[in-house]
This record gives sequence, structure tokens and C-alpha cells, in this order.
Amino acid sequence: MPRWPDPDTKSRSLYDRALNVLPGGVTRVAPWQPPYPVYAQSCKGAWITDVDGNQIFDLINNFASLIHGHAHPAIIDAVTAQLSHGTACTMPTEREVALAELLCERVPAFDKVRFCNSGTEAVMLAVKAARAFTGRPALAKVEGAYHGTYDHVEVSLDSRPENWGNDPNPVAFVAGTPKAVLDDTVILPFNQPEAAARIIREQGARLAAVLIDLMPIYTGCVPATPEFLKAITEAARATGAIVILDEVISFRFGYSGGQGVFGIEPDLTTLAKIIGGGFPVGAVAGKEKIMAVFDHRSGKPAVASTGTFTANMVTMTAGLVGMELMTEEAFDRLNALGDRTRSKLSDAVRRSQYPAQITGHGSIFKIHTHSRPVNDYRSAWSTPEELADLAALQAGLLRRGFLISTKGNGFLSTVMTEAELDSFVDAVEGELRILATQRLLA
Amino acid sequence: MPRWPDPDTKSRSLYDRALNVLPGGVTRVAPWQPPYPVYAQSCKGAWITDVDGNQIFDLINNFASLIHGHAHPAIIDAVTAQLSHGTACTMPTEREVALAELLCERVPAFDKVRFCNSGTEAVMLAVKAARAFTGRPALAKVEGAYHGTYDHVEVSLDSRPENWGNDPNPVAFVAGTPKAVLDDTVILPFNQPEAAARIIREQGARLAAVLIDLMPIYTGCVPATPEFLKAITEAARATGAIVILDEVISFRFGYSGGQGVFGIEPDLTTLAKIIGGGFPVGAVAGKEKIMAVFDHRSGKPAVASTGTFTANMVTMTAGLVGMELMTEEAFDRLNALGDRTRSKLSDAVRRSQYPAQITGHGSIFKIHTHSRPVNDYRSAWSTPEELADLAALQAGLLRRGFLISTKGNGFLSTVMTEAELDSFVDAVEGELRILATQRLLA
Repeated sequence: MPRWPDPDTKSRSLYDRALNVLPGGVTRVAPWQPPYPVYAQSCKGAWITDVDGNQIFDLINNFASLIHGHAHPAIIDAVTAQLSHGTACTMPTEREVALAELLCERVPAFDKVRFCNSGTEAVMLAVKAARAFTGRPALAKVEGAYHGTYDHVEVSLDSRPENWGNDPNPVAFVAGTPKAVLDDTVILPFNQPEAAARIIREQGARLAAVLIDLMPIYTGCVPATPEFLKAITEAARATGAIVILDEVISFRFGYSGGQGVFGIEPDLTTLAKIIGGGFPVGAVAGKEKIMAVFDHRSGKPAVASTGTFTANMVTMTAGLVGMELMTEEAFDRLNALGDRTRSKLSDAVRRSQYPAQITGHGSIFKIHTHSRPVNDYRSAWSTPEELADLAALQAGLLRRGFLISTKGNGFLSTVMTEAELDSFVDAVEGELRILATQRLLA
Repeated sequence: MPRWPDPDTKSRSLYDRALNVLPGGVTRVAPWQPPYPVYAQSCKGAWITDVDGNQIFDLINNFASLIHGHAHPAIIDAVTAQLSHGTACTMPTEREVALAELLCERVPAFDKVRFCNSGTEAVMLAVKAARAFTGRPALAKVEGAYHGTYDHVEVSLDSRPENWGNDPNPVAFVAGTPKAVLDDTVILPFNQPEAAARIIREQGARLAAVLIDLMPIYTGCVPATPEFLKAITEAARATGAIVILDEVISFRFGYSGGQGVFGIEPDLTTLAKIIGGGFPVGAVAGKEKIMAVFDHRSGKPAVASTGTFTANMVTMTAGLVGMELMTEEAFDRLNALGDRTRSKLSDAVRRSQYPAQITGHGSIFKIHTHSRPVNDYRSAWSTPEELADLAALQAGLLRRGFLISTKGNGFLSTVMTEAELDSFVDAVEGELRILATQRLLA
């Protein structure tokens, strides 16, 4: 069992080294956890071996990107074969055509695909495409929804009761955010069809795009309702704004993405994570007439996107193999495993007598340390005491050898077994029982 | 010899397939060349084998990123060994610490490093850090300089005589660029110390950062003069703006980067390309007090940067091996090869009787199809006839089996030989002689 956060582990020593060369000792916020992060030595399937030799069951899967877990043999074989023929070529290769063909064959709303290097780049590219197509400056996005680190999409990522307003205010997430960014960003309340549609209509001809996620993981990790999706897409189209669906995470919901499952046909879709097979990737896909902004054939394109490592041979190879493994049956099995896990987690919550709840969809779950109904960012808002319990739960699970995100999220992979997940559910029940006892004693 | 652009090649067939799924049939602007791009089958060292079986000497090296050419054995061995232990882990690893240590040891201005996934992300992150540190909105950048695809840094990338103004106007590069982006971007003339310093001072307390490149490849590919660098860094510091040095390309100039060679100490530096060993990478490095904006230890950081694939194990492994191979002696040898190549190219120009000229520095060169003195973006401006000659030169070289960029740039690697480069020089001379004859006949 991991001795984290003891002060004499190899992870602690590595973190001390890291403090000399990385701000705060880390280079990503997401894997951080106080007092120091656990460092990985080797990853295989559903398991990470840390630098102290502990085996940890990885329910994060590099933040939903590793749908086949770590180092899947078919992907590793294909990439190993590719390596001696180059990693990132000066010229285009057949691989980029093949991966784009696979995506276009699977998703009706994908006429064309444009690759880039990350989800952040994909969202930025989609917003630029929407601005170029409409000639309008403003973007509407959902309060609390994460879409990467491009200026406008970070607005109101962490708004708080004292600043979030009635209709959501645009609240800066990053220090020094220019006022112009806030002025060009419109914030929508999640799963409130009438209010969101009204706010979109009030923007009229200023709005280039409405950016949505079928289940933003920071707004309670509850699916968008059909009424909400219908109301905002209709309002967007009534004002002439582009509907951008961010499927960086939700593309793992099904063979035709989350849009196939939820029955929505966006104008543009952003992709990343699972389409790269464990390597850096991003993409924008969508309707012919809008994707034409990237077309250079009649001179300089409206949006000239490029990128040194865009569509590199390793990412395209790994992505193609990984997506080919995700047949319709593979999605069904993975989603069934998700349904089973959430159901068993909910049973464990009930048995524990701790007032937690489980939300999620498909292969994604979130553990909340309160039992109030969750429908959006505000209703998912937790008190400091609830957040302390969540931190204790996450840390307790890590000491038992199970890794979920510090936000309480888990993302399953195709290589996880029911037995492994049952052990995880048992560990959650054990930790919740401890929290329940502590509450009684408090 | 490549039969490109014949209509019956395998490259042509692949491009026809690509037209169905990629806008304009490509997914990057940079490798495009009309009427269709050549597709790579396999890359090794300095050579690409295309899908039609032709051997092509690659002087682009994936746009300056492959400083050891394609598939360097030491990098491939290290990455192959890594693959079975995972590609992108949920947790941090020792690799990110080791690569950051190498960078900080080599460059005096690097107290701390923050990784990301591309040069575009690095520049965006540096601009956000400067805004957060100063609380100011505006960015100054050089007319015609390329710094990736973040909104503000694309401004005036392709301004033209009819819109560039006396003091450079901020001119939108991408359709639909919001007016707010232009309002927050200030354009500087390259290598004009007095004018650039005056423009910076006029901005006063609005300016968060001055973004510079020691040799922007689209402003004539001539080095910044010491007077220019001194004037703009002094002006920036006088107004309290951060100096960001974009070393995405120029880091290949020396063991301590271009800043070591040019004797400049920036506040922040952006990196990408060669530090990733042929895999997607980006980084911001710089002074402790500014890099502290990323530090999460006293609560939410001023700039919360993360990224699914940031500091992934494959990129960090390849980057570390690639940079370790770049000893001081390796930089010296590569730069000497660059000096020799530019000198021999200049001799070939003279012999050809065509009024071309060669600019560049270190391992980078650019062929201009005019002989007017080049000092900045405007003096490098080419007439339509000169651009047609450049296109003919680039296409002619490709048919002879030598690949330079459509802008006339080349970037050498450590695995190129003098004999190979002599053959390239001969090919350039041959093509220039053809162009000289055509001019006489015209």
C-alpha cells in the first residue's frame, strides 16, 4: 500500500528535486495533490507502479485520454513499428488521411477534419473558425465548464457565489485576463433551457458561437438534458451563431461520439484525448461549409492553421489503432461497465450511511460528498467541509491503491475488469464509512 | 527523381483521397505546395522516401524541429524502451524533472520551466504569465514575425504595403479577428531601434510584454542587431513590460540557446521544436519571480496551466536524449556546417548570375530571389515575379530530390554531411542558372 504522504518516500524526494526547476514543483495543475504528488515509474493496463514500488489502480487514465489504459499492446506494437520510419515528418502522410476517414465515416456531422496538438488548440481553432465564418466576435459558454486554457473559454471556470450573479457574470479565471476577453464572453447556466436561450437571443448578432459540452465534468458531471440541448441549439441557430460541441471528453460515450448518443448534430466538434491513442492530439471536425474556412485552395484561407507536430505519424498511428479497437461492441461493453460501476458505487454509498452521491454517464463517474440534487455548476457547489471530505476520500483511496481525480472523477478503460472495479467499490465504501463515523463524532 | 507534380503519382492519389476528409486536402498550411503535396512513406536521418519510392533530402527537418534528423537511433531506442511502460501517465514522472534540470543548467535566465504541448501553447502561456504578472493587457510584437496561432501573436503576420502604415498598423491575419485583439496588440518594426523603442515607450503602462525573436524567419531571416535588442529590452523594462524571447526556433543556435549567442537575458523564454526530440512539446522558462505565477502552493495560482499530454513520458524521454546529444561541441559542428552551407550557397548564387542572396544564421538559411539589402519584413518583401521565381526554385529543387520550404528556408541537422550539402548547393546553382536564362529570354 502506498505510504504517501509520508515524508520519506522516493516520490517526496523527487518532488523536492522538482521544486528547484518547476514552479511549485509541478508542470500540470491536474495531477497535483498536497502535500506532494505520487510519481510514476511504469504504467501498464489499468495499473501504475509508482517510484516507491506501489501498485496503484488508475481510474483517471490520464484524464480520460487512455480509453485502453496504459501501453495497450496493439498500440505499442504499431508505434514501435512506426518509430524507425520517423516520428514527425515534414510532409503529410497517409496516416492523417486514414484517421480523418475513420472519424468522418463514424460521425454524420463530420464532413471534414482538421488536426492540431491538444484539446486547448482544438477549442481555440474552433472558436477562430466560428469567428471567421460569422464575422462576429463573441463566444457563449457554460458556467463552470472546462474547455482548455484559451482565454475566452476559461472565463467563469471557478466563479463563486459572491461573484457569479443571477444571470451568470463573466468572471476572470486567470489573473490579468484582459477586459476585452470578458466583454466578448457570454456565460450560460447549465441545464436551464429558458434562461440560457434567452441570454443567447439577447446577444443577437454579436455571437459567433455557442460552445457546449454534453456533460461538463466540473458542473456536477450530470448529462445535459434534451430540453437544454434543444433550447440552446435552436437559440444559437436563430441568432446565426455556430454550435460548437466540445467532445474532447464525451467522444468516449459512443461509436458516433456523444453526439450520436445524445442525438445532437453540431456545426463544429472539438476532439482530443481518445483519438490520439495516448499521444498528444487535437482536432476540429464539422460541416463542409464551415470547415471551408481552413481551405487554402483559393488563396490564403480565412483561418490558416498549421503546427509543427500536427498530425505527426506517431499520434496518427496510435490514434488509428486505438479507435479501430473501439468498435460499436467495445463502446457497449465499456458503457455497460460504467453503468455497473456507478450502480455499485451508489449501493456502496447507501450502505456507508455517508450522504454522498454518484453522478456520471457512460464510462465516467463522479463522487459527490453531499446528497443535494445536482443539476448544474451551482447545485454541485460544495461547502468547505464537503470539499475537505472529498480530499480525505481521494487521499484515503490513494493509500488503498486506487487513484481517482482530486475532483472525485473516474474514467474507465476497456482493460478494466469487473473484479478490479468491485475492489474499488469496496474501497470507496470503506472510506465513506470512515467519513460517516468522523461526522458522527464531530 | 520525383515525378511530382505529374498527375499519375501515388502522392496525387493520396491527395485526392485527402480532399474528401480534410479541408483543401491538408491539415497543416506549412507543408502545402500546389498542385499537391508529396506524401512521405518513411523518414530516416536526412532523407525521406516518398510514397512513390523517391529519395528526398529533407532540409526542412519538420520545420526546424528535428535537429538530429529523422528517427535518430539513440532517440528511437530510448522511446522504444519507454513505450511498454506507458506513453502519457496520469501522474508526474522523473523525466519532466530531468529535462527541466537540463534546461535550467544550460541557460542562466532559466530559473524554472513549465511544459506544454506546442510552440503555440508556449507563447500563449508566456503572454498569459506576463499579463498576470503585470496586470496589463497589451502585447508588442514584431511586424511579420511568426509566433504560432494564438490570436494576438498572429497580428500583422502578413501585412502588406497597402495596409502596413508608417509606424506598423496592427493588421488582422485571420478573418474575424475581434477588434479587441487588434486594440491590445502593438506592432514593432524589426531592426529599427529608435522607432521600436519609441513605440514601446508610447504605450506606457498598457504593455504587459514585448515578444521578440532573434531571427524571425519571415522578416528576411536576418539576425536582430545588438542595437535593436538593446533598445527594445531597455524600452520594455523602462515601461515595466516583460521581455519574452521566442526561442521556439532560435534555441538551436547554441548550448545556452540563441540568448547565449546574442547576449540577451530575457524575463521569459518560449521553447518547443528541438527540446521534444521529434515529439510534440512546448515550454515556458524564465525568472523565478515571474514563473511564480504558475505556482499553486499558496492556493489557486495566478495562471493555472495544465494539459492532458503536457510533459508526457515519450516527449520527455525523447527530448532529454536529443538535448543530451547536443553538447557544446555538437552545436559548434552544426553551426559550422551552417556557415559553410550559407557561404557555398552565396558562391553558387554569384556563379549563377541570378540576382539571389542568402541570409540566415547558425544552422538556418534562407534563399531570397532578389538582391536588395534585407534588414526587416519590409525590405524582405518580394514582388510577385520574385515570388514566382522562388516557387519555381523550390519546385525545381524538389524534382531534383531536395526539399526546402516554400518560403526558401532550410534548417540543417547533425546527421547531414558536407557531401550531401554540396550536392544541394549544386542543385541550387543549377536551378538558379535556369531562372537566370529564363529572365534573359523574358
